[in-house]
Amino acid sequence: MVKEWNGFQTGKWCEEIDVRDFIQCNYTPYEGDDSFLAEVSEATDRLWKEALALCQKEQEKGGVLDADTAVVSTLTSHQAGYLDQKLEKIVGFQTDAPLKRALQPFGGIKMSESALKAYGYEIDKEIKEIFTKYRKTHNQGVFDAYTPEMRKARHCAIITGLPDAYGRGRIIGDYRRVALYGIDRLIIDKQEVLAALDGTMTDAKIRSREEIAEQLKALKDMKKMAEIYGCDIAKPAQTAQEAIQAVYFGYLAAVKDQNGAAMSLGRVSTFLDIYIQRDLEQGVLDEKGAQELMDQFVMKLRLIRFMRTPEYNELFSGDPNWVTESIGGMGTDGRTLVTKNSFRILHTLTNLGPAPEPNLTVLWSKDLPEGFKRYCAKMSIKTSAIQYENDDLMRIDMGDDYGIACCVSCMRIGKDMQFFGARANLAKALLYAINGGMDEKKKEQVSPRFEPITSDYLDYEEVMEKYDQMLEWLAGLYVNTLNVIHYMHDKYSYEAAEMALHDQDVRRFFATGVAGLSVVADSLSAIKYAKVKVVRDEDGIAVDFIREGDFPKYGNNDDRVDAIAKDIVKRFMMKIKKHHTYREGVHSMSILTITSNVVYGKKTGATPDGRAAGEAFAPGANPMHGRDCNGALASLESVAKLPYDYARDGISNTFSIVPAALGKDDASREANLITLLDGYVKANGHHLNVNVFDRALLLDAQAHPEKYPQLTIRVSGYAVNFNKLTKEQQDEVIKRTMHEHF
Amino acid sequence: MVKEWNGFQTGKWCEEIDVRDFIQCNYTPYEGDDSFLAEVSEATDRLWKEALALCQKEQEKGGVLDADTAVVSTLTSHQAGYLDQKLEKIVGFQTDAPLKRALQPFGGIKMSESALKAYGYEIDKEIKEIFTKYRKTHNQGVFDAYTPEMRKARHCAIITGLPDAYGRGRIIGDYRRVALYGIDRLIIDKQEVLAALDGTMTDAKIRSREEIAEQLKALKDMKKMAEIYGCDIAKPAQTAQEAIQAVYFGYLAAVKDQNGAAMSLGRVSTFLDIYIQRDLEQGVLDEKGAQELMDQFVMKLRLIRFMRTPEYNELFSGDPNWVTESIGGMGTDGRTLVTKNSFRILHTLTNLGPAPEPNLTVLWSKDLPEGFKRYCAKMSIKTSAIQYENDDLMRIDMGDDYGIACCVSCMRIGKDMQFFGARANLAKALLYAINGGMDEKKKEQVSPRFEPITSDYLDYEEVMEKYDQMLEWLAGLYVNTLNVIHYMHDKYSYEAAEMALHDQDVRRFFATGVAGLSVVADSLSAIKYAKVKVVRDEDGIAVDFIREGDFPKYGNNDDRVDAIAKDIVKRFMMKIKKHHTYREGVHSMSILTITSNVVYGKKTGATPDGRAAGEAFAPGANPMHGRDCNGALASLESVAKLPYDYARDGISNTFSIVPAALGKDDASREANLITLLDGYVKANGHHLNVNVFDRALLLDAQAHPEKYPQLTIRVSGYAVNFNKLTKEQQDEVIKRTMHEHF
Repeated sequence: MVKEWNGFQTGKWCEEIDVRDFIQCNYTPYEGDDSFLAEVSEATDRLWKEALALCQKEQEKGGVLDADTAVVSTLTSHQAGYLDQKLEKIVGFQTDAPLKRALQPFGGIKMSESALKAYGYEIDKEIKEIFTKYRKTHNQGVFDAYTPEMRKARHCAIITGLPDAYGRGRIIGDYRRVALYGIDRLIIDKQEVLAALDGTMTDAKIRSREEIAEQLKALKDMKKMAEIYGCDIAKPAQTAQEAIQAVYFGYLAAVKDQNGAAMSLGRVSTFLDIYIQRDLEQGVLDEKGAQELMDQFVMKLRLIRFMRTPEYNELFSGDPNWVTESIGGMGTDGRTLVTKNSFRILHTLTNLGPAPEPNLTVLWSKDLPEGFKRYCAKMSIKTSAIQYENDDLMRIDMGDDYGIACCVSCMRIGKDMQFFGARANLAKALLYAINGGMDEKKKEQVSPRFEPITSDYLDYEEVMEKYDQMLEWLAGLYVNTLNVIHYMHDKYSYEAAEMALHDQDVRRFFATGVAGLSVVADSLSAIKYAKVKVVRDEDGIAVDFIREGDFPKYGNNDDRVDAIAKDIVKRFMMKIKKHHTYREGVHSMSILTITSNVVYGKKTGATPDGRAAGEAFAPGANPMHGRDCNGALASLESVAKLPYDYARDGISNTFSIVPAALGKDDASREANLITLLDGYVKANGHHLNVNVFDRALLLDAQAHPEKYPQLTIRVSGYAVNFNKLTKEQQDEVIKRTMHEHF
Repeated sequence: MVKEWNGFQTGKWCEEIDVRDFIQCNYTPYEGDDSFLAEVSEATDRLWKEALALCQKEQEKGGVLDADTAVVSTLTSHQAGYLDQKLEKIVGFQTDAPLKRALQPFGGIKMSESALKAYGYEIDKEIKEIFTKYRKTHNQGVFDAYTPEMRKARHCAIITGLPDAYGRGRIIGDYRRVALYGIDRLIIDKQEVLAALDGTMTDAKIRSREEIAEQLKALKDMKKMAEIYGCDIAKPAQTAQEAIQAVYFGYLAAVKDQNGAAMSLGRVSTFLDIYIQRDLEQGVLDEKGAQELMDQFVMKLRLIRFMRTPEYNELFSGDPNWVTESIGGMGTDGRTLVTKNSFRILHTLTNLGPAPEPNLTVLWSKDLPEGFKRYCAKMSIKTSAIQYENDDLMRIDMGDDYGIACCVSCMRIGKDMQFFGARANLAKALLYAINGGMDEKKKEQVSPRFEPITSDYLDYEEVMEKYDQMLEWLAGLYVNTLNVIHYMHDKYSYEAAEMALHDQDVRRFFATGVAGLSVVADSLSAIKYAKVKVVRDEDGIAVDFIREGDFPKYGNNDDRVDAIAKDIVKRFMMKIKKHHTYREGVHSMSILTITSNVVYGKKTGATPDGRAAGEAFAPGANPMHGRDCNGALASLESVAKLPYDYARDGISNTFSIVPAALGKDDASREANLITLLDGYVKANGHHLNVNVFDRALLLDAQAHPEKYPQLTIRVSGYAVNFNKLTKEQQDEVIKRTMHEHF
């Protein structure tokens, strides 16, 4: 046996790259409470204070502390960077200094240039020339191949947020492999895989062979990158510190290589617990030391930065990176995957204070140990920094070693990847159905010139027939637009470092997404159950709607409208499925807007449900603000009805409750939150962001940001520092339903 | 009608891009003799003297006069370059000075670097960095995807000359389109084609869309390139001078864009005759002026240069570019396509003296007008600078608007392209069959470890069985190696300028080639008809062969051995056809070595036919040197038997006859050469290089090169300046059969 594996139970994982098997053979489930947790170390505390001071400076400078303008980021492009070298247990920054943003032009040189410009930097002329004249970027490739219809759909925002100018992200390398096997063993594995790709040289095989060649270069570069920091990751990790460092180096390689929409971490805490446990048992580490390592690891993850345009920030506010870590869950053998380290990583919210990153995601099961459930509830109530996803639902198909990429997208670590697909605006599509494909804002014909509705009052049957036809068109256009994007991304901005930490026969999810679901459901409900009169402008375009009578609204556990929402999800997914996908991607769909619900709303005219033109949508699968007035549970029931089978990429629900509604004291609040989560999970709800605060708190924070430097709230699949939101985004958050009764 | 088309007969060509239709509607067949031809103009004479002086300097400097080291060649990378501006009727150089070689690193940066280094130049550091760190090249892509077996086969030279470090070439843009339609019209056509590529976005369609986007950029850049020379090619050409200039600009764009293995011109002379004829009839041009334009056009083509490595020159000696122009031929309607301009372009051999470029290729038909036949014969005898290809054979499938790319590869202009495939060494494959796939020179196992032959004497049946198995393996490996190359070439070095001058639905020939055919035929004949004893070295590898008794040799019109040669051609082609080809390429094969027969021979051990280890092969489909001893006609008969149906990419025969054998005076020599060509064509012979000289002349030229500055000889599919050959290559040429009886 490899000497670095001393003390581990052997298994299949020794022969093959199989981290799950290693975990199953070696981890120690923990059913206790949080009493063992250690306080922050002095070194960590000092480091974090320095980091916070830098973050403060970054805010003061308008959001960017420093940025490269001439050095193109690669795994080995930078010398070592430190915050305070002698205090750092876990090392490594994306560039040679903390918070200095890297230059990553492979996605699009214009994006790089304008992002720099927005923050007062000028891109190096020569770099611009290289990436204009010689090195085509993903963005250029995509726009070379887009059809006029695709450009128009994008311009009119019926499809928005497409990763056509930046990295698609949502790919999780199995960073644990670096620690468990060391790079040299991973190289041998990839060489074996490459050797097997012989015989008839089809395009697909040639592409794969070239990709593996790029992966091999990335693996070799990872070793060099580690060497720059004086670390050797050629061999397996010998200690917990080395293991955490190796996992972090794997992740660091990914973020040096790619500026992806979401650069998630995976599911590392239980894996790392095995190393910590071994060190604890061998007496070379104590609990305080273990916590220090995790605190410092998390601190590094909190300091990940990308250079992005203000437009990007408008869509995804608060400078998020989705360093999503999946915690807990149950094993397929019935043992819990909660370990002490599941507590430790949540405990960073106490030791370092709340923060949006890493995006702490608890895989909730009704069978989780009571102690852990209670600790999660406690931390949620205290910090509003945790999201929950239904492990009982996902484990059925994904097994027990999947992780969440971005907000809600589950994938088996190292075995699945995703082609990120942003989202289609279903509310706008409804207006297109009414207006025959004429955009209600831009007054441009976007779809084929379908027959518009000309009657004064909307007829449900007619609307549904025309909406169905419009969704049919939209699904085809959408999938084909994504086909172009992913073809070009692979061609011009392949994620070699991340894919080097995947199996070869990876399953590719072809993700799509929808926005405006609750607007559509309520609009169709209004048309069906009330009377809706159309107001048309001088061009005959429906620009407003007058409702006569009341109608059931999504979010109140009323099947009359909830059934409509369910139908729309299934209907659109079945249309998506009809279309050819790049690299035989497995069609999937999410109901998730992240924070783009604000921008989507801004670009969409008035809708039949009574939503005014320009008004924000509800985020993700949420009921519209304030319309779910039958209490928290009824709201959750409605969302839980949405069919996960047709939205396997995730159904995001962002939930806010005032502390008083949750219970009179901490104990009862914790108990009630657990009950609520158990109930949601049992009802097949998929995802829940949990916020516990009063509207008054947010209003106070808006007025006095200096009082709340670390105020973190869950917005939509991720958390954000409240102060980093724009006024408009803060207003939208404040407007959201905050349940005042259970 | 477009005003530039005044005087032309209208037709389908006015509506659609259809140059052939324009030619058919407007050309004037010429059945007369060469008496109308004009002498060289004073301006041309002065220019050519200046050009020759530069060429002399180039030779004195070791082969390269000047070279760019920092400016990457694009259509618009250089300012205008002139030889003597006031004298030039046709303008344009690849760089800003004549004979200054461009830097074209997209095929491979190492190739660029080592080519420069070989001639004493150093590549700009920054360019090297760009093309190493940021801009991957074709060469890098290919080597990323090659399997170990492919590398080994390449290393041991069982497959050689692969275009994996330079441009594949053998693509002919329809440069006439620039003159006839002008760039603006071509842009509109491509935009229409692009619009039709809608619907389901398969990989193939996305690739096509991106390629057309690149073509559109290239077309726009062609206009800018012409503007640099003060010319406007947006609109159709109005005069013969504009037409020739426009055709040349189209070609210039191609050679600025690509450093291809063979950058052929197409079939432009009869097309240009229409413009000259119009000008003559309108009295704005006289014959002297017409010849001056053609002379100056040809002069420019003679000054085309590429930066290439000494290894490349070792394979393809004499710095050739294959600016192949196809002349004459018959129309499918029975009219000859010979025009006065067919004479004019051959007349450049008189006005400027003989030269290897452009590669003048007469499409010979038994029905060609007598006057043209006689003129061709006269010029061949005088200059040895013409090659002939069987128009009667090719016209059946290719129609009457095809051209020859490189040496023998026919393709319909603007409608077909070729994926160039170099060649497999069939003689070495025979040794592999005997040695079980162990390379006889490198002593490496290249093929799978097939059972070797262990008997002392070779048994024909056993050899054939094992040879068949080896060819089976070789065909698969060869096609798959080419699949990798062409995938990567499209990815990293797409020929946007050339393909912009093609139809969209282009037919792609997937070319393969064989070397050593006559060695194989004679070897198998020896095994079958004599006794061949194997001499093995200490490792058991067959390193020599001892023949007992005589055997029939290919090249003497003896069916016993000619049938073997025919069988090998068909057999290998049928194996090639079994394999998947990139982009559904149409399998084709050539029997053509160019001058690589020397290098192939050098890398191949002794063969059963008596050829010593290292001895050169015969070029192309030629009988082995000196073995065709039954006279010229018997030799030609043997080659003509090879089945063109299984070698549609061409069967190259290089033929030398001493003047005395051809006839006692010019008239009888011309008549006999015509008889010979008619006979060869009737017998379905495909290609013939015709050399008419004595061995004594070549020996004298070898000893006194200064006496023969423009001595041109046909080597193998192209002509070469004898002085530019290495001593070794000269010796091989001198050793070739020079028929001394008819």
